[in-house]
Amino acid sequence: MTQPPAAARPRHERPPLPPRERMLRAAVRLISMQGVTATGLREIAAAAGAPRGSLQHYFPGGKDQLVAEALAIAGEVAARRVRRYAARRPAPTPGDLFAAIAGAWRDSYASRGYAEGCPLAATATDAAAASPVLRDALRHALDTWLDSLAGALATLGVPASRTRPLALLMFAALEGALILARSREDTQPLDAVIAELRPVLDAARAG
Amino acid sequence: MTQPPAAARPRHERPPLPPRERMLRAAVRLISMQGVTATGLREIAAAAGAPRGSLQHYFPGGKDQLVAEALAIAGEVAARRVRRYAARRPAPTPGDLFAAIAGAWRDSYASRGYAEGCPLAATATDAAAASPVLRDALRHALDTWLDSLAGALATLGVPASRTRPLALLMFAALEGALILARSREDTQPLDAVIAELRPVLDAARAG
Repeated sequence: MTQPPAAARPRHERPPLPPRERMLRAAVRLISMQGVTATGLREIAAAAGAPRGSLQHYFPGGKDQLVAEALAIAGEVAARRVRRYAARRPAPTPGDLFAAIAGAWRDSYASRGYAEGCPLAATATDAAAASPVLRDALRHALDTWLDSLAGALATLGVPASRTRPLALLMFAALEGALILARSREDTQPLDAVIAELRPVLDAARAG
Repeated sequence: MTQPPAAARPRHERPPLPPRERMLRAAVRLISMQGVTATGLREIAAAAGAPRGSLQHYFPGGKDQLVAEALAIAGEVAARRVRRYAARRPAPTPGDLFAAIAGAWRDSYASRGYAEGCPLAATATDAAAASPVLRDALRHALDTWLDSLAGALATLGVPASRTRPLALLMFAALEGALILARSREDTQPLDAVIAELRPVLDAARAG
Protein backbone atom coordinates (compact mmCIF):
# COMPACT_ATOMS: atom_id res chain seq x y z
CA MET A 1 0.00 0.00 0.00
CA THR A 2 1.48 3.31 -1.06
CA GLN A 3 -1.17 5.31 0.80
CA PRO A 4 -2.43 4.93 4.35
CA PRO A 5 -6.07 3.94 4.57
CA ALA A 6 -8.47 6.84 4.90
CA ALA A 7 -9.19 6.17 8.58
CA ALA A 8 -5.53 6.41 9.54
CA ARG A 9 -4.89 9.52 7.45
CA PRO A 10 -4.71 12.85 9.35
CA ARG A 11 -7.65 15.16 8.69
CA HIS A 12 -5.65 17.59 6.60
CA GLU A 13 -4.75 14.81 4.21
CA ARG A 14 -8.29 14.09 3.13
CA PRO A 15 -8.39 12.89 -0.44
CA PRO A 16 -8.71 15.91 -2.73
CA LEU A 17 -12.08 16.65 -4.31
CA PRO A 18 -12.50 15.44 -7.87
CA PRO A 19 -11.62 18.11 -10.45
CA ARG A 20 -15.21 18.71 -11.53
CA GLU A 21 -16.24 19.48 -7.96
CA ARG A 22 -13.17 21.68 -7.45
CA MET A 23 -14.06 23.73 -10.53
CA LEU A 24 -17.62 24.27 -9.31
CA ARG A 25 -16.43 25.38 -5.89
CA ALA A 26 -13.86 27.70 -7.44
CA ALA A 27 -16.60 29.20 -9.62
CA VAL A 28 -18.84 29.87 -6.62
CA ARG A 29 -16.00 31.61 -4.82
CA LEU A 30 -14.85 33.70 -7.79
CA ILE A 31 -18.42 34.76 -8.66
CA SER A 32 -19.02 35.76 -5.05
CA MET A 33 -15.94 38.00 -5.27
CA GLN A 34 -16.23 39.60 -8.70
CA GLY A 35 -19.43 38.50 -10.43
CA VAL A 36 -19.98 36.29 -13.46
CA THR A 37 -18.76 38.58 -16.24
CA ALA A 38 -15.31 39.08 -14.76
CA THR A 39 -14.87 35.37 -14.03
CA GLY A 40 -13.31 33.59 -16.97
CA LEU A 41 -13.13 29.85 -17.55
CA ARG A 42 -9.36 30.03 -17.55
CA GLU A 43 -9.38 31.65 -14.10
CA ILE A 44 -11.78 29.01 -12.77
CA ALA A 45 -9.57 26.20 -14.04
CA ALA A 46 -6.48 27.82 -12.57
CA ALA A 47 -8.15 28.38 -9.19
CA ALA A 48 -9.25 24.75 -9.17
CA GLY A 49 -5.80 23.49 -10.14
CA ALA A 50 -7.35 21.81 -13.17
CA PRO A 51 -6.05 21.82 -16.73
CA ARG A 52 -7.84 24.35 -18.94
CA GLY A 53 -8.65 21.59 -21.42
CA SER A 54 -10.63 19.61 -18.86
CA LEU A 55 -13.36 22.29 -18.74
CA GLN A 56 -14.71 21.24 -22.11
CA HIS A 57 -14.71 17.64 -20.90
CA TYR A 58 -16.61 18.31 -17.69
CA PHE A 59 -18.79 21.16 -18.90
CA PRO A 60 -19.57 20.68 -22.58
CA GLY A 61 -22.21 23.41 -22.25
CA GLY A 62 -19.44 25.91 -21.55
CA LYS A 63 -19.50 28.76 -19.06
CA ASP A 64 -23.30 28.88 -18.84
CA GLN A 65 -23.42 25.24 -17.76
CA LEU A 66 -20.61 25.65 -15.23
CA VAL A 67 -22.10 28.81 -13.70
CA ALA A 68 -25.61 27.32 -13.64
CA GLU A 69 -24.34 24.29 -11.72
CA ALA A 70 -22.34 26.55 -9.39
CA LEU A 71 -25.48 28.56 -8.61
CA ALA A 72 -27.37 25.35 -7.84
CA ILE A 73 -24.64 24.41 -5.35
CA ALA A 74 -24.75 27.87 -3.77
CA GLY A 75 -28.54 27.64 -3.35
CA GLU A 76 -28.31 24.15 -1.87
CA VAL A 77 -25.53 25.10 0.56
CA ALA A 78 -27.54 28.10 1.75
CA ALA A 79 -30.69 26.01 2.15
CA ARG A 80 -28.84 23.29 4.09
CA ARG A 81 -27.43 25.90 6.43
CA VAL A 82 -30.93 27.27 7.09
CA ARG A 83 -32.26 23.79 7.86
CA ARG A 84 -29.29 23.11 10.16
CA TYR A 85 -29.85 26.32 12.13
CA ALA A 86 -33.58 25.62 12.40
CA ALA A 87 -32.91 22.10 13.73
CA ARG A 88 -30.75 23.27 16.65
CA ARG A 89 -31.93 22.37 20.13
CA PRO A 90 -33.19 24.17 22.10
CA ALA A 91 -35.22 25.39 19.13
CA PRO A 92 -34.38 28.92 17.99
CA THR A 93 -37.01 31.61 17.62
CA PRO A 94 -37.53 33.02 14.10
CA GLY A 95 -35.44 36.01 15.18
CA ASP A 96 -32.67 33.68 16.38
CA LEU A 97 -32.73 31.97 13.01
CA PHE A 98 -32.23 35.24 11.15
CA ALA A 99 -29.53 36.30 13.61
CA ALA A 100 -27.68 33.01 13.01
CA ILE A 101 -27.81 33.36 9.22
CA ALA A 102 -26.87 37.04 9.06
CA GLY A 103 -24.49 36.69 12.01
CA ALA A 104 -22.44 34.06 10.16
CA TRP A 105 -21.79 36.62 7.43
CA ARG A 106 -21.00 39.33 9.96
CA ASP A 107 -18.48 37.07 11.71
CA SER A 108 -16.92 36.11 8.40
CA TYR A 109 -16.53 39.75 7.35
CA ALA A 110 -15.12 40.71 10.74
CA SER A 111 -12.54 37.92 10.74
CA ARG A 112 -11.69 37.37 7.07
CA GLY A 113 -12.45 40.67 5.37
CA TYR A 114 -14.98 41.77 2.80
CA ALA A 115 -13.83 40.04 -0.37
CA GLU A 116 -16.90 37.86 -0.86
CA GLY A 117 -20.59 38.58 -1.25
CA CYS A 118 -23.56 36.46 -2.28
CA PRO A 119 -22.93 34.72 -5.62
CA LEU A 120 -26.66 34.80 -6.40
CA ALA A 121 -26.82 38.57 -5.99
CA ALA A 122 -23.75 38.95 -8.16
CA THR A 123 -25.33 36.87 -10.91
CA ALA A 124 -28.56 38.84 -10.66
CA THR A 125 -26.81 42.15 -11.20
CA ASP A 126 -24.31 41.34 -13.94
CA ALA A 127 -25.26 38.28 -15.96
CA ALA A 128 -28.80 36.98 -15.57
CA ALA A 129 -30.41 39.51 -17.90
CA ALA A 130 -28.29 38.38 -20.84
CA SER A 131 -28.59 34.60 -20.43
CA PRO A 132 -31.83 32.61 -20.20
CA VAL A 133 -29.84 29.62 -18.88
CA LEU A 134 -28.40 31.65 -16.02
CA ARG A 135 -31.73 33.34 -15.36
CA ASP A 136 -33.40 29.96 -14.88
CA ALA A 137 -30.55 28.68 -12.73
CA LEU A 138 -30.61 31.83 -10.61
CA ARG A 139 -34.35 31.64 -10.10
CA HIS A 140 -34.12 27.99 -9.12
CA ALA A 141 -31.29 28.66 -6.63
CA LEU A 142 -33.16 31.60 -5.09
CA ASP A 143 -36.31 29.49 -4.75
CA THR A 144 -34.34 26.69 -3.09
CA TRP A 145 -33.10 29.16 -0.49
CA LEU A 146 -36.46 30.93 -0.09
CA ASP A 147 -38.29 27.64 0.35
CA SER A 148 -35.86 26.60 3.06
CA LEU A 149 -36.46 29.88 4.90
CA ALA A 150 -40.25 29.61 4.62
CA GLY A 151 -40.09 25.96 5.72
CA ALA A 152 -37.91 26.80 8.70
CA LEU A 153 -40.26 29.59 9.79
CA ALA A 154 -43.16 27.13 9.65
CA THR A 155 -41.36 24.64 11.89
CA LEU A 156 -40.54 27.47 14.31
CA GLY A 157 -44.21 28.34 14.82
CA VAL A 158 -44.96 31.01 12.20
CA PRO A 159 -48.47 30.61 10.73
CA ALA A 160 -48.56 29.42 7.12
CA SER A 161 -49.96 32.71 5.78
CA ARG A 162 -46.92 34.59 7.16
CA THR A 163 -44.03 32.30 6.23
CA ARG A 164 -43.70 33.44 2.62
CA PRO A 165 -43.71 37.24 3.12
CA LEU A 166 -41.40 36.94 6.13
CA ALA A 167 -39.02 34.68 4.21
CA LEU A 168 -38.92 37.32 1.46
CA LEU A 169 -38.26 40.01 4.06
CA MET A 170 -35.42 38.02 5.68
CA PHE A 171 -33.89 37.24 2.33
CA ALA A 172 -34.14 40.81 1.05
CA ALA A 173 -32.78 42.35 4.24
CA LEU A 174 -29.85 39.93 4.29
CA GLU A 175 -28.95 40.45 0.62
CA GLY A 176 -29.17 44.21 0.90
CA ALA A 177 -27.19 44.27 4.15
CA LEU A 178 -24.45 42.20 2.50
CA ILE A 179 -24.19 44.74 -0.32
CA LEU A 180 -24.01 47.61 2.16
CA ALA A 181 -21.60 45.87 4.55
CA ARG A 182 -19.24 44.87 1.80
CA SER A 183 -19.29 48.25 0.07
CA ARG A 184 -18.70 50.15 3.28
CA GLU A 185 -16.40 47.50 4.81
CA ASP A 186 -18.46 47.73 7.95
CA THR A 187 -20.57 45.14 9.77
CA GLN A 188 -23.07 47.74 11.00
CA PRO A 189 -25.69 47.05 8.29
CA LEU A 190 -25.79 43.38 9.32
CA ASP A 191 -26.05 44.28 13.01
CA ALA A 192 -28.84 46.73 12.19
CA VAL A 193 -31.00 44.29 10.25
CA ILE A 194 -30.50 41.60 12.89
CA ALA A 195 -31.52 43.94 15.71
CA GLU A 196 -34.44 45.49 13.81
CA LEU A 197 -35.95 42.29 12.44
CA ARG A 198 -35.58 40.13 15.55
CA PRO A 199 -38.72 41.48 17.30
CA VAL A 200 -40.66 41.57 14.01
CA LEU A 201 -39.93 37.92 13.29
CA ASP A 202 -40.49 36.76 16.86
CA ALA A 203 -43.84 38.57 17.02
CA ALA A 204 -45.04 36.55 14.02
CA ARG A 205 -45.15 33.29 15.95
CA ALA A 206 -48.62 31.92 16.49
CA GLY A 207 -50.21 32.72 19.85
CA MET B 1 -33.35 82.15 -36.80
CA THR B 2 -33.10 78.53 -37.82
CA GLN B 3 -34.41 77.31 -34.50
CA PRO B 4 -37.39 78.48 -32.49
CA PRO B 5 -36.49 79.95 -29.10
CA ALA B 6 -36.57 77.53 -26.23
CA ALA B 7 -39.82 78.86 -24.79
CA ALA B 8 -41.73 78.29 -28.01
CA ARG B 9 -40.25 74.85 -28.61
CA PRO B 10 -42.48 71.86 -27.85
CA ARG B 11 -41.39 69.84 -24.80
CA HIS B 12 -40.11 66.92 -26.82
CA GLU B 13 -37.72 69.21 -28.63
CA ARG B 14 -35.79 70.26 -25.55
CA PRO B 15 -32.17 71.01 -26.39
CA PRO B 16 -30.19 67.79 -26.14
CA LEU B 17 -27.99 67.27 -23.11
CA PRO B 18 -24.31 68.00 -23.59
CA PRO B 19 -22.30 64.90 -24.59
CA ARG B 20 -20.52 64.57 -21.24
CA GLU B 21 -23.85 64.43 -19.41
CA ARG B 22 -25.26 62.00 -21.96
CA MET B 23 -22.33 59.65 -21.44
CA LEU B 24 -22.79 59.68 -17.66
CA ARG B 25 -26.49 58.95 -17.96
CA ALA B 26 -25.83 56.16 -20.43
CA ALA B 27 -23.27 54.69 -18.01
CA VAL B 28 -25.77 54.72 -15.13
CA ARG B 29 -28.34 52.93 -17.27
CA LEU B 30 -25.95 50.32 -18.68
CA ILE B 31 -24.44 49.57 -15.26
CA SER B 32 -27.93 49.17 -13.80
CA MET B 33 -28.65 46.58 -16.50
CA GLN B 34 -25.44 44.55 -16.69
CA GLY B 35 -22.93 45.75 -14.11
CA VAL B 36 -19.63 47.55 -14.50
CA THR B 37 -17.45 44.77 -15.91
CA ALA B 38 -19.71 44.10 -18.90
CA THR B 39 -20.09 47.80 -19.69
CA GLY B 40 -17.38 48.94 -22.06
CA LEU B 41 -16.41 52.52 -22.87
CA ARG B 42 -17.26 51.90 -26.50
CA GLU B 43 -20.79 50.82 -25.54
CA ILE B 44 -21.26 53.87 -23.33
CA ALA B 45 -20.18 56.20 -26.14
CA ALA B 46 -22.49 54.45 -28.61
CA ALA B 47 -25.45 54.58 -26.22
CA ALA B 48 -24.80 58.28 -25.66
CA GLY B 49 -24.48 58.97 -29.38
CA ALA B 50 -21.01 60.39 -28.74
CA PRO B 51 -17.86 59.70 -30.73
CA ARG B 52 -15.62 57.12 -29.07
CA GLY B 53 -12.72 59.56 -29.19
CA SER B 54 -14.52 62.11 -27.04
CA LEU B 55 -14.35 59.81 -23.98
CA GLN B 56 -10.67 60.50 -23.50
CA HIS B 57 -11.41 64.21 -23.76
CA TYR B 58 -14.19 64.25 -21.19
CA PHE B 59 -12.87 61.52 -18.91
CA PRO B 60 -9.08 61.55 -18.97
CA GLY B 61 -9.14 59.21 -15.95
CA GLY B 62 -10.73 56.54 -18.14
CA LYS B 63 -13.44 54.10 -17.17
CA ASP B 64 -12.84 54.45 -13.43
CA GLN B 65 -13.45 58.20 -13.62
CA LEU B 66 -16.56 57.83 -15.76
CA VAL B 67 -18.07 55.12 -13.56
CA ALA B 68 -17.18 56.99 -10.35
CA GLU B 69 -18.98 60.09 -11.64
CA ALA B 70 -21.93 57.98 -12.78
CA LEU B 71 -22.22 56.47 -9.29
CA ALA B 72 -22.19 59.95 -7.76
CA ILE B 73 -25.09 60.93 -10.02
CA ALA B 74 -26.99 57.76 -9.11
CA GLY B 75 -26.54 58.48 -5.40
CA GLU B 76 -27.62 62.10 -5.81
CA VAL B 77 -30.69 61.20 -7.87
CA ALA B 78 -31.76 58.64 -5.26
CA ALA B 79 -31.22 61.12 -2.41
CA ARG B 80 -33.16 63.86 -4.20
CA ARG B 81 -36.05 61.46 -4.73
CA VAL B 82 -36.09 60.60 -1.01
CA ARG B 83 -36.13 64.28 -0.06
CA ARG B 84 -38.93 64.95 -2.55
CA TYR B 85 -41.08 62.14 -1.17
CA ALA B 86 -40.45 63.29 2.40
CA ALA B 87 -41.47 66.87 1.53
CA ARG B 88 -44.92 65.89 0.19
CA ARG B 89 -47.93 67.40 1.92
CA PRO B 90 -49.76 66.05 3.80
CA ALA B 91 -46.59 64.67 5.33
CA PRO B 92 -46.08 60.95 4.77
CA THR B 93 -45.45 58.56 7.63
CA PRO B 94 -42.09 56.72 7.61
CA GLY B 95 -43.94 53.69 6.24
CA ASP B 96 -45.44 55.84 3.47
CA LEU B 97 -41.96 57.05 2.60
CA PHE B 98 -40.65 53.52 2.20
CA ALA B 99 -43.76 52.51 0.24
CA ALA B 100 -43.21 55.45 -2.14
CA ILE B 101 -39.54 54.56 -2.73
CA ALA B 102 -40.01 50.83 -3.15
CA GLY B 103 -43.35 51.32 -4.90
CA ALA B 104 -41.71 53.40 -7.63
CA TRP B 105 -39.49 50.43 -8.45
CA ARG B 106 -42.43 48.03 -8.32
CA ASP B 107 -44.43 50.21 -10.72
CA SER B 108 -41.45 50.50 -13.05
CA TYR B 109 -40.95 46.73 -13.12
CA ALA B 110 -44.65 46.10 -13.66
CA SER B 111 -44.90 48.54 -16.56
CA ARG B 112 -41.47 48.47 -18.19
CA GLY B 113 -40.04 45.06 -17.35
CA TYR B 114 -37.10 43.91 -15.26
CA ALA B 115 -34.10 45.02 -17.27
CA GLU B 116 -32.69 47.46 -14.71
CA GLY B 117 -31.59 47.13 -11.11
CA CYS B 118 -29.68 49.40 -8.74
CA PRO B 119 -26.40 50.56 -10.28
CA LEU B 120 -24.83 50.80 -6.82
CA ALA B 121 -25.62 47.17 -6.02
CA ALA B 122 -24.24 46.14 -9.40
CA THR B 123 -20.99 47.97 -8.72
CA ALA B 124 -20.76 46.44 -5.26
CA THR B 125 -20.98 42.91 -6.59
CA ASP B 126 -18.79 43.03 -9.67
CA ALA B 127 -16.27 45.84 -9.60
CA ALA B 128 -15.73 47.58 -6.29
CA ALA B 129 -13.40 44.95 -4.83
CA ALA B 130 -10.88 45.39 -7.66
CA SER B 131 -10.79 49.20 -7.82
CA PRO B 132 -10.08 51.56 -4.91
CA VAL B 133 -11.44 54.47 -7.00
CA LEU B 134 -14.76 52.70 -7.53
CA ARG B 135 -14.87 51.52 -3.93
CA ASP B 136 -14.57 55.10 -2.69
CA ALA B 137 -17.14 56.35 -5.20
CA LEU B 138 -19.54 53.57 -4.26
CA ARG B 139 -19.19 54.25 -0.56
CA HIS B 140 -19.78 57.94 -1.10
CA ALA B 141 -22.87 57.33 -3.24
CA LEU B 142 -24.30 54.88 -0.70
CA ASP B 143 -23.69 57.35 2.12
CA THR B 144 -25.42 60.11 0.15
CA TRP B 145 -28.49 57.92 -0.17
CA LEU B 146 -28.34 56.60 3.41
CA ASP B 147 -27.98 60.12 4.79
CA SER B 148 -31.03 61.26 2.85
CA LEU B 149 -33.05 58.37 4.27
CA ALA B 150 -31.93 59.02 7.85
CA GLY B 151 -32.59 62.74 7.41
CA ALA B 152 -36.05 62.10 6.02
CA LEU B 153 -36.92 59.78 8.91
CA ALA B 154 -35.85 62.51 11.34
CA THR B 155 -38.12 65.07 9.69
CA LEU B 156 -40.98 62.55 9.80
CA GLY B 157 -40.76 62.18 13.58
CA VAL B 158 -38.38 59.27 14.16
CA PRO B 159 -36.13 59.85 17.19
CA ALA B 160 -32.47 60.51 16.38
CA SER B 161 -31.25 57.25 17.92
CA ARG B 162 -33.46 55.25 15.53
CA THR B 163 -32.95 57.04 12.22
CA ARG B 164 -29.66 55.37 11.32
CA PRO B 165 -30.58 51.71 11.98
CA LEU B 166 -33.97 52.16 10.30
CA ALA B 167 -32.38 53.84 7.29
CA LEU B 168 -30.03 50.85 7.01
CA LEU B 169 -33.01 48.49 7.28
CA MET B 170 -34.97 50.37 4.58
CA PHE B 171 -31.98 50.47 2.30
CA ALA B 172 -31.08 46.81 2.80
CA ALA B 173 -34.66 45.59 2.35
CA LEU B 174 -35.06 47.64 -0.83
CA GLU B 175 -31.78 46.50 -2.37
CA GLY B 176 -32.43 42.87 -1.57
CA ALA B 177 -36.01 43.06 -2.81
CA LEU B 178 -34.78 44.54 -6.09
CA ILE B 179 -32.40 41.60 -6.56
CA LEU B 180 -35.17 39.12 -5.82
CA ALA B 181 -37.82 40.89 -7.91
CA ARG B 182 -35.55 41.20 -10.90
CA SER B 183 -34.26 37.64 -10.72
CA ARG B 184 -37.70 36.17 -10.38
CA GLU B 185 -39.40 38.71 -12.66
CA ASP B 186 -42.00 39.17 -9.99
CA THR B 187 -43.01 42.23 -7.95
CA GLN B 188 -43.97 40.14 -4.91
CA PRO B 189 -40.68 40.73 -3.03
CA LEU B 190 -41.23 44.49 -3.25
CA ASP B 191 -44.85 44.18 -2.11
CA ALA B 192 -43.71 41.96 0.77
CA VAL B 193 -41.09 44.34 2.13
CA ILE B 194 -43.46 47.31 1.79
CA ALA B 195 -46.23 45.51 3.69
CA GLU B 196 -43.93 44.06 6.35
CA LEU B 197 -41.90 47.20 7.06
CA ARG B 198 -44.74 49.72 7.05
CA PRO B 199 -45.90 49.00 10.63
CA VAL B 200 -42.31 48.65 11.85
CA LEU B 201 -41.34 52.06 10.47
CA ASP B 202 -44.53 53.78 11.59
CA ALA B 203 -44.16 52.40 15.12
CA ALA B 204 -40.77 54.09 15.39
CA ARG B 205 -42.23 57.60 15.43
CA ALA B 206 -41.81 59.44 18.69
CA GLY B 207 -44.80 59.81 20.98
